[in-house]
This record gives sequence, structure tokens and C-alpha cells, in this order.
Amino acid sequence: MEIASTTQDQTDQGVCPHFHAAIELIGKRWTGAIVCALTERPLRFGELAKAVPGLSDRLLSQRLRELEEEGVVKREVEPGSPVRVTYSLSEKGAELRPAIRELRSWARRWRAG
Amino acid sequence: MEIASTTQDQTDQGVCPHFHAAIELIGKRWTGAIVCALTERPLRFGELAKAVPGLSDRLLSQRLRELEEEGVVKREVEPGSPVRVTYSLSEKGAELRPAIRELRSWARRWRAG
Repeated sequence: MEIASTTQDQTDQGVCPHFHAAIELIGKRWTGAIVCALTERPLRFGELAKAVPGLSDRLLSQRLRELEEEGVVKREVEPGSPVRVTYSLSEKGAELRPAIRELRSWARRWRAG
Repeated sequence: MEIASTTQDQTDQGVCPHFHAAIELIGKRWTGAIVCALTERPLRFGELAKAVPGLSDRLLSQRLRELEEEGVVKREVEPGSPVRVTYSLSEKGAELRPAIRELRSWARRWRAG
């Protein structure tokens, strides 16, 4: 029986299962832009809303909740009145930086102007 | 008047306009997986369909057409009977490789197992 030559990623799930899972996560509408905004520094809800214009507060909350569930974003609550809620990248989220950097430079090169 | 400190990307369009445009393109459902499959080598339609399981032929055609319009994928027709149609990455598409590589290694690290 001949064994077809395959790369590590060529399984029954297709050639790029890991990549596919990752891009389905961060490619979801608005999710990438939120993560990208948080690569700069931790942000409060209102700051994030400004950093990603066109996104409703409701959808921003939903996306942040999803990103928390995925372990990409951390939500920190500082007690006080009113409480301050800050969003930042977890270690898992921070490790998206190189991918984001590459995609940004590609986009600058090919989509600008 | 105080001028807020901004990075090159912080415009009225939000902090990551280039990235946002790129991720909306390659993050579209199935698009990233198709591009990822083509980073290995040029593929024929049927090979692509196998490389990205779960995707209908109709939707694969549509995504390929979109990627051609974006200048990411090239479609080459070799005359003959039947004609052979091959899809490959253009220069613009090929330059997505570093971003795809980074996202794959992130996905392997954080989503596997």
C-alpha cells in the first residue's frame, strides 16, 4: 500500500485544521479589530468602542465575552465607584502579536492607496 | 490644544484600519482555509475541495471568484479536453505566507489538545 505524502497538517480535517480554527476565531466579524486594538495597551470599554468604530456596544460586549471564553482577553475589575473595567490580552492573546503584525504589514503593502 | 499621542494607525478609522481590512478579507468564512491550502502548491478545483472539507462546490467557486477579484488567487486554464483549471496564489497572495505561518503556529500551540 502506498502512503501518500502528507505534511503534518494534512489530515482528514483538511490541509490546515489548526489555521482554520484560528482564523475562524480571530476572523469573526470585529473580533480581529478588537484584538488588534488591545495589542497596543489595555483599554476600557469606552476606549475600545472608540478604537473600533462602527461596532455597537452590544456587539462589542458580546465579542469581548467570546474572547474571554476563548482565553484571549482578560477582564479586570478595579473596585471603586464607578468600578473600572479594563480589558487586556492574556498570554494566549498576546502571542497573536506576530500574526497580527504580519497581517498588518501585508495589508499596508497591498491595500493602502 | 493638546495633541493626543497616536501611532501611525490611529486614525478616525480606528486603531487598526489596515489590519481590519485584511482580516475581513481573509477571515471570511472558508477564505482563510482556501488561501492556506494554496500556500502548499497550486491546486485544481477538486483538490481544493478535498483540502477544505465541509465546503460545498458552490461556495468554493464563489470564494475563489472573490479571491481572484481581490488579486489574491490566480486561475489558470490549460487548454485540452477536458480543460484543466489550476488555482494558485498571486504575488499578493503568496505574501500572506508569513501571516499564515504565524497564525498556524499560534493555533498549534494554543488550540491543539
